[in-house]
Amino acid sequence: MAVRSHLRIYLVFVLVLAAGLSIGTSALAETGPLPSWNDGPTKQAIVDFVQKTTDKSSPAFIPPAERIVTFDNDGTLWPSHPMYTQLAFALDRIKALAPKHPEWKTQQPFKAVLDNNMKALAAGGEKGLVELVMASHAGMSTAEFEKIVSDWFMTAKHPRFKRPYTKLAYQPMLELLSYLRANGFKTYIVSGGGIEFMRPMTEAVYGVPPEQVIGSSIETKYEMKDGKPMLMRLPKIHFIDDKAGKPVGINMFIGRRPVAAFGNSDGDRQMLEWTGAGNGARLMMLVFHDDAKREYAYGPANGLPDTKFGTFSQSLMDEAKKKGWIVISMKNDWKRIFAPEQ
Amino acid sequence: MAVRSHLRIYLVFVLVLAAGLSIGTSALAETGPLPSWNDGPTKQAIVDFVQKTTDKSSPAFIPPAERIVTFDNDGTLWPSHPMYTQLAFALDRIKALAPKHPEWKTQQPFKAVLDNNMKALAAGGEKGLVELVMASHAGMSTAEFEKIVSDWFMTAKHPRFKRPYTKLAYQPMLELLSYLRANGFKTYIVSGGGIEFMRPMTEAVYGVPPEQVIGSSIETKYEMKDGKPMLMRLPKIHFIDDKAGKPVGINMFIGRRPVAAFGNSDGDRQMLEWTGAGNGARLMMLVFHDDAKREYAYGPANGLPDTKFGTFSQSLMDEAKKKGWIVISMKNDWKRIFAPEQ
Repeated sequence: MAVRSHLRIYLVFVLVLAAGLSIGTSALAETGPLPSWNDGPTKQAIVDFVQKTTDKSSPAFIPPAERIVTFDNDGTLWPSHPMYTQLAFALDRIKALAPKHPEWKTQQPFKAVLDNNMKALAAGGEKGLVELVMASHAGMSTAEFEKIVSDWFMTAKHPRFKRPYTKLAYQPMLELLSYLRANGFKTYIVSGGGIEFMRPMTEAVYGVPPEQVIGSSIETKYEMKDGKPMLMRLPKIHFIDDKAGKPVGINMFIGRRPVAAFGNSDGDRQMLEWTGAGNGARLMMLVFHDDAKREYAYGPANGLPDTKFGTFSQSLMDEAKKKGWIVISMKNDWKRIFAPEQ
Repeated sequence: MAVRSHLRIYLVFVLVLAAGLSIGTSALAETGPLPSWNDGPTKQAIVDFVQKTTDKSSPAFIPPAERIVTFDNDGTLWPSHPMYTQLAFALDRIKALAPKHPEWKTQQPFKAVLDNNMKALAAGGEKGLVELVMASHAGMSTAEFEKIVSDWFMTAKHPRFKRPYTKLAYQPMLELLSYLRANGFKTYIVSGGGIEFMRPMTEAVYGVPPEQVIGSSIETKYEMKDGKPMLMRLPKIHFIDDKAGKPVGINMFIGRRPVAAFGNSDGDRQMLEWTGAGNGARLMMLVFHDDAKREYAYGPANGLPDTKFGTFSQSLMDEAKKKGWIVISMKNDWKRIFAPEQ
């Protein structure tokens, strides 16, 4: 019995050791800076860029103060399908406000929202969308809007992945943000989305503080109410931070040209052009959604289906190739898309 | 001879020692955080605010990320008399461009500038000023404008103090900026002046990087010229960062409410109101120009003469008293105005 008992202890010891080694090895394989990125030229390009620009003896060295990096949000840091997160918010908000607006039952584009009629909604075009945004995003103070947005993020879930939107940041991009910050880069979000829709969540989700978020905005007006100053949100567009607006927004808010820029669609083209036209080392990358199984697949570049939410045109793909912008294949370059569920 | 020689050496030694001690004593008296501020309640209020908001055990503690402090520029960090520095730039620029615009010889407000006729210039009012700004600030790329501004700062001098404008930052305010930054506060400039007029000099003069400068702006447009992207400056106002525009600009650029704000005129009133309306410890201060001998004296608060460049009205003085905003007397609170000439 003593021998068998010793044998058992020995076997348990060996199994534990083996398990330990196996865990050790797999952990070891992921201790690099970008564990959710597959090894290959895409990951290597990022590592090479960071190494040469932070090495004082390299001719490509960039002083810390100039290490400005800009990231698009929708489709670059988190999904933009089946629709932009902010549009999902606007639709929920219209439904929540409907009891106070009986006229919406018969009035487009509101009727389409209340009927969940996406076809009628699409028929309203951009004009209809602007009406929805104004009805859902304006008419309150900035403090009230911040609370409305924060509350929505606490409960809203993505229709396919059944997780809060705030848990759907792309894991490889979170690692990239951390890796860049650990090397002295200042990470900015430069999105076509609403600046005050993003700010309540960017710090918690991406580690990006509000003062490093640039986005589209409506006008606000300073008012005194009962002796207390407020900023009231007006139903009037102030700035559209998309396409040619992105370099304008970057110049306005930061006053420096980025040294690296990350996007995923035709809306990011000018940001990458502007970044690439600077002197010295530059890194421009585009996330290409070619992974229908784990996320979504759309283009229309490379023959994938077209989309209203983050078009990646063939002409953008051609410009990327011509200018040496790196196209990230979600399918091939990323080990995983999202963090494992907690 | 040996005795006299020893005596001489001894005397030299004593004199050197005395000089050393005297330098030592005077340096010692100025080793506090704000050496150019006279001791008294104003200086004490600053030190108290910094101590209680950075002491983790204090109920007034402010986490580092929220330590946002905003400073007006003209009249708060450097002189705004005899006219705003940017207006001096615009007038010089009009004169430099005049050879290409023969029509300006007979056309107001340009004729007034070329004739050095300040009375005719004033008669043109705000409309005339906007015309001058557009003619001098628009029609080139952002890169070209940056060069024009930088070149001007290299040569232009203040008419009374005969020093470059960049050497006229108020020494007590430079010490305040450094003291706040050394305690983890992020210092922003929030000025009615042009954002792209300030950014070429704020880092060198105030230690404030371009991404922490908020100001008025004209529109810019992204354009491709010979395959190179440019931002062209258009003769159209985009945003006026003055009065009620200051809280709007702060909210837009920073997305956080400041915990301290420094101004000098009616243009800063709303910034101080907005700052003061936040929860927790707050510090609001106004530089009052009551020192005609060392700088300028104007109000019209406290019966001083009125001005077009940085009005401090009696009603602002009344609001300051009512709300506990601290009024800095340049005459009594500051040991010196400018750094000694090098």
